[in-house]
Amino acid sequence: MSGKKRRIALNTGGGDCPGLNAVIRAVVKRCVLQLEWEVIGIRDSFDGLIGPRMDLLELTPDVVAGGLTRGGTLLGSTNRGNPFDFDPTGEGKGQDLSGLVVERLNSLGCDGLIALGGDGTMAICNDLSERTGLKVIGVPKTIDNDLLGTDITFGFNSAVEFATLAVDRLHTTAESHHRVMVVEVMGRDAGFIALHAGVGGGADAILIPEVPFELSKVAEKILDRQVRGRHFSIVVVAEGAREKGGEQIHDGLAASGKTRLGGIGRYVADKLHRTTGIDARYTVLGHLQRGGIPTAFDRILATRLGNHAVDLAVDDMWNRLVVMRANKITDIPLADAVDATKSVSLDCDLVKAARGVGIVFGD
Amino acid sequence: MSGKKRRIALNTGGGDCPGLNAVIRAVVKRCVLQLEWEVIGIRDSFDGLIGPRMDLLELTPDVVAGGLTRGGTLLGSTNRGNPFDFDPTGEGKGQDLSGLVVERLNSLGCDGLIALGGDGTMAICNDLSERTGLKVIGVPKTIDNDLLGTDITFGFNSAVEFATLAVDRLHTTAESHHRVMVVEVMGRDAGFIALHAGVGGGADAILIPEVPFELSKVAEKILDRQVRGRHFSIVVVAEGAREKGGEQIHDGLAASGKTRLGGIGRYVADKLHRTTGIDARYTVLGHLQRGGIPTAFDRILATRLGNHAVDLAVDDMWNRLVVMRANKITDIPLADAVDATKSVSLDCDLVKAARGVGIVFGD
Amino acid sequence: MSGKKRRIALNTGGGDCPGLNAVIRAVVKRCVLQLEWEVIGIRDSFDGLIGPRMDLLELTPDVVAGGLTRGGTLLGSTNRGNPFDFDPTGEGKGQDLSGLVVERLNSLGCDGLIALGGDGTMAICNDLSERTGLKVIGVPKTIDNDLLGTDITFGFNSAVEFATLAVDRLHTTAESHHRVMVVEVMGRDAGFIALHAGVGGGADAILIPEVPFELSKVAEKILDRQVRGRHFSIVVVAEGAREKGGEQIHDGLAASGKTRLGGIGRYVADKLHRTTGIDARYTVLGHLQRGGIPTAFDRILATRLGNHAVDLAVDDMWNRLVVMRANKITDIPLADAVDATKSVSLDCDLVKAARGVGIVFGD
Amino acid sequence: MSGKKRRIALNTGGGDCPGLNAVIRAVVKRCVLQLEWEVIGIRDSFDGLIGPRMDLLELTPDVVAGGLTRGGTLLGSTNRGNPFDFDPTGEGKGQDLSGLVVERLNSLGCDGLIALGGDGTMAICNDLSERTGLKVIGVPKTIDNDLLGTDITFGFNSAVEFATLAVDRLHTTAESHHRVMVVEVMGRDAGFIALHAGVGGGADAILIPEVPFELSKVAEKILDRQVRGRHFSIVVVAEGAREKGGEQIHDGLAASGKTRLGGIGRYVADKLHRTTGIDARYTVLGHLQRGGIPTAFDRILATRLGNHAVDLAVDDMWNRLVVMRANKITDIPLADAVDATKSVSLDCDLVKAARGVGIVFGD
Repeated sequence: MSGKKRRIALNTGGGDCPGLNAVIRAVVKRCVLQLEWEVIGIRDSFDGLIGPRMDLLELTPDVVAGGLTRGGTLLGSTNRGNPFDFDPTGEGKGQDLSGLVVERLNSLGCDGLIALGGDGTMAICNDLSERTGLKVIGVPKTIDNDLLGTDITFGFNSAVEFATLAVDRLHTTAESHHRVMVVEVMGRDAGFIALHAGVGGGADAILIPEVPFELSKVAEKILDRQVRGRHFSIVVVAEGAREKGGEQIHDGLAASGKTRLGGIGRYVADKLHRTTGIDARYTVLGHLQRGGIPTAFDRILATRLGNHAVDLAVDDMWNRLVVMRANKITDIPLADAVDATKSVSLDCDLVKAARGVGIVFGD
Repeated sequence: MSGKKRRIALNTGGGDCPGLNAVIRAVVKRCVLQLEWEVIGIRDSFDGLIGPRMDLLELTPDVVAGGLTRGGTLLGSTNRGNPFDFDPTGEGKGQDLSGLVVERLNSLGCDGLIALGGDGTMAICNDLSERTGLKVIGVPKTIDNDLLGTDITFGFNSAVEFATLAVDRLHTTAESHHRVMVVEVMGRDAGFIALHAGVGGGADAILIPEVPFELSKVAEKILDRQVRGRHFSIVVVAEGAREKGGEQIHDGLAASGKTRLGGIGRYVADKLHRTTGIDARYTVLGHLQRGGIPTAFDRILATRLGNHAVDLAVDDMWNRLVVMRANKITDIPLADAVDATKSVSLDCDLVKAARGVGIVFGD
Repeated sequence: MSGKKRRIALNTGGGDCPGLNAVIRAVVKRCVLQLEWEVIGIRDSFDGLIGPRMDLLELTPDVVAGGLTRGGTLLGSTNRGNPFDFDPTGEGKGQDLSGLVVERLNSLGCDGLIALGGDGTMAICNDLSERTGLKVIGVPKTIDNDLLGTDITFGFNSAVEFATLAVDRLHTTAESHHRVMVVEVMGRDAGFIALHAGVGGGADAILIPEVPFELSKVAEKILDRQVRGRHFSIVVVAEGAREKGGEQIHDGLAASGKTRLGGIGRYVADKLHRTTGIDARYTVLGHLQRGGIPTAFDRILATRLGNHAVDLAVDDMWNRLVVMRANKITDIPLADAVDATKSVSLDCDLVKAARGVGIVFGD
Repeated sequence: MSGKKRRIALNTGGGDCPGLNAVIRAVVKRCVLQLEWEVIGIRDSFDGLIGPRMDLLELTPDVVAGGLTRGGTLLGSTNRGNPFDFDPTGEGKGQDLSGLVVERLNSLGCDGLIALGGDGTMAICNDLSERTGLKVIGVPKTIDNDLLGTDITFGFNSAVEFATLAVDRLHTTAESHHRVMVVEVMGRDAGFIALHAGVGGGADAILIPEVPFELSKVAEKILDRQVRGRHFSIVVVAEGAREKGGEQIHDGLAASGKTRLGGIGRYVADKLHRTTGIDARYTVLGHLQRGGIPTAFDRILATRLGNHAVDLAVDDMWNRLVVMRANKITDIPLADAVDATKSVSLDCDLVKAARGVGIVFGD
């Protein structure tokens, strides 16, 4: 290394997701302890690099200690730091500071950037690599599991385990009080969390964005159960689910600049109450799904992804995305991951199994 | 016993609460296995006794097996079954069927009734004992811990542990995204859950019904933290909390016949966002607090309460309420528990400790 | 179906494993509610079918209700009921009652058997199908995840999550008291649980049957950490791990007819204490890993497996084993699964990632 | 304060216990943020003060952040640092360095010491106060809950919740395999953990040091259950329990300088197996009970205790122990706590309730 240590940068962008710190820890332990590189953490996505003042944190083994069990990200995160339209205070006066990214990384002596983020962050990284020559390795982060290039993303398992636990808790109340309980979970565009938590939690109906639903079909199921002596039902609904012929309630609210809990959950509960005459209540899991200690599954997955990201840096393989395919960690071109979301396929065996145990999707 | 087994009845009324099945189990194991009595369970509060058709369940050790870990109540519950104004279908045509309670218990050969329920149920039981001669032993059930006669009620510990876990989960998101997170917990009239979960979860502000709050004081705390480099804050708010000079938002909604999640939580988040300029989100724990597997604490408390209820029946001590005082199980006259709610005292050492670690109450 | 319902039998064999009841529930809900078949449960592996008295349980939706969250198996299980050497009381006077299996299933009107079990049970089922014409569909159950034909088995994820949680708990004690903590986990022949819980829990060394270890290498790692100011270490050891040149301690004990907790765990702790001079303690997770509520992951996997088993029965495809390959449920010939155990490959990316974060295997 | 900040010292001694960091956090937040004092942490009990080199840590709000959810102690702990017989390396050449304690605290400008520790630490502190004039405030720490002066100690609730969860996990295995499961929990001299976890977990027998047991009574209970169709049983045994006329197995092992897991647990399992003919297994919870994230209950209790300790320092009330009595935090003379252990009283209502649900104690 001729006296000069190799140095890479790392940042995290987008929403909170269990396992971010575990990826960071794996990158740092490998780089610092095995390879004797240095890792420079950039705070708050790109803000800490190109914002009014640099905000960096040298990532040492001490800094990442305990990272396996810590939710959130020790580097902070934000959705507003797009370098092509940089507007960290959200005042609507964005500037194109994309050139600064490579310039500053160079001045810091960093060979490249390991970026942890969602599809938004990955699209930005891909643009930066194409337009400014940034050398970047992406680690995909989406709690919704809706990225096409990878079988699974870290954070998803933690979210599903918590959502299932929540359904478990609602079960006893529903049963004791002869109620319909509607649980609204994450998933604006894809129903993976709803599908998994619904099957895991023993729901009677699962409503997902992929299947515009008719509530009459759900009501029928609830009344069928009534006849068989089951005076309660559980409905899991993804925030992005919508009625056949209807609009996404969530998007409507978001568009108006106001977020109100329980758009679709409340709608479904109210309508099922009217239709069936059975008392119906709703609960919105919201941010509870994003936080907390990652499951072992996600810690392990995150460690594998982080280690592979360093493998790529060692081999000077840039502009790649680290992914999981058929239980193996591998990588694909970053460009392939942009705009490549996936949805629940109604032909998959999990949907068939769900129908097999009697769960209705409202179709 | 001259060939005829002694027999008692048992029912559960009011909202779901972790530990109900553990009380039932303790009563049944003691009565059936130790005393060779029979226990007749009445389903759905008083509905199973005086409703259109009797709905009973003999409570044997087999039926209550596993009761320690099962949330809800195996007997079902309802808030509509007041025998003095009996209206099980909620159509507003209540009848006074109070006389039927004793009549039917007699015809079933039951000496008396062990009733598990909240203050509503206990008031009804007291009226029944005074007006119709019902022999009843009450076991108090309020997840809110707001009954004056007892130091603590079962279910409260389970609710606090879950609410604290929820605050833990929100912490990491708040910290990563530099946000204010507002968590709305149960407590219409008393702030015990908010106070305990707020201290246990490390909140920065706790808003409770006992202390009409000024949000400017909370905003000040949040901005103080900002200055000290803590770019996030957690606010725990009881559903019944209200602004100084304002009305209870929850009650207003309830009065209008609509329940919407996050009345006060949403209000607090919106106003703090406007005042501080910091992104603020809210989460409503709602029914998640009532369900699930009881903590060991509640299972143990429930077992002690159930066993003492049988002690009273053995001694033919009726019209008593089983309570916990200074770590001992004892009993008080049922009449003493009616209308005897308690509130958080601002002089208690927990509130002082909360202030000691810097938590503000908005006063 | 001309008036006669189709009927299948189901049993569970071998050790306890989280998710057994979830498989049973899926089979029953599909068969009874969707197909209008009947499912006859046989208690205690084959004992309930060919034992001194038949012990059967009709599996209705009521019987399997709550099966997602219930550990163990509602049918009971045993390791002693091999029909070719039937010796249910373990007195060593086995008889060949294999012919009775088909005979009795026929007399019960069952088309075939869905058998949930480990490799022992699957070998027996395969023999029964080859020698007696039994029509059987196997669902593999091994908490150790060491079956070659499938990517993963249900129960494994639950075991790993618990073992990781246990490592988390030991971490704080190790750190506070400057100790080496040795955790012995399941895995006589394969180190999957140790590997996963070790990576998930942030262990410093992982000892598995696949890699005969030298404790000097582990001691070196511990002392390296000491130098870097980390005065504690965590070692996860599979029960079947052994020293280079040594014997499996576990097997030795088992052979002598005595099982004593902590054969290898205790050995490792004692020797590391002597070598490093650092206080070392051990903990044996034992049966804690087998029990408890299954994770959502295992409930979902179990539901998919159960549903596919019924698919095979619908299509009259017998003597198949239901497996998971590349995230899809499929099936293979039962004969292929016999004697087909798998081990941790040292080339897999998880082992590489473990080494990447500095974990030593003692090789 | 005339320009000079008041300063106090704080240390932790004895075994790991959930809630230690929560006490430290409460002391520091109150002292530093409310009172503008300084808090000097001494590492590893008294070692960091009087050892070969001082090892101190200024305790700021940053240092204690996250302390509510962190197990262990951030200051480290040891059982070997008795200043009257100072032998930190355990070589048996102890020196009396007690005079150094006050001397060094004075030279650091500390008014006094807040000491968190068990009865050993409290006895040392009392001796120091009597012989050297140390000004000390004690906060009692015993996971076993066996201190006479206080109704409950922090850490106990966390240990009981975990032990109960463990019993829950073993239940399903016991039931599926028709086994006796013996669980050995902490408690050398007092059976509080065994009693609480046994009642909470639904054990059939609880063996505690306070009641020398006859295993024939336990076997009788197990066989009674057999007759009633319950083919499994759970026995919770405290590590210090002993047979009528027998010796404490644990102490015997400890005396010989070897600790082996499952002294009494293994003994009980082996003997019950021989007596009843039913398969019996044992599990030792060991260090798992000490670690992990504290429950909300313990975090709250710890916060109250820590805040009261500062109250005493504010009022210059030294040589006091902070305790909980009848749900209120108060304090008693430190001297009163020395040699004041408490045991389970067989007359308490919890033991009666345990017997009420059919649990046997072997008496």
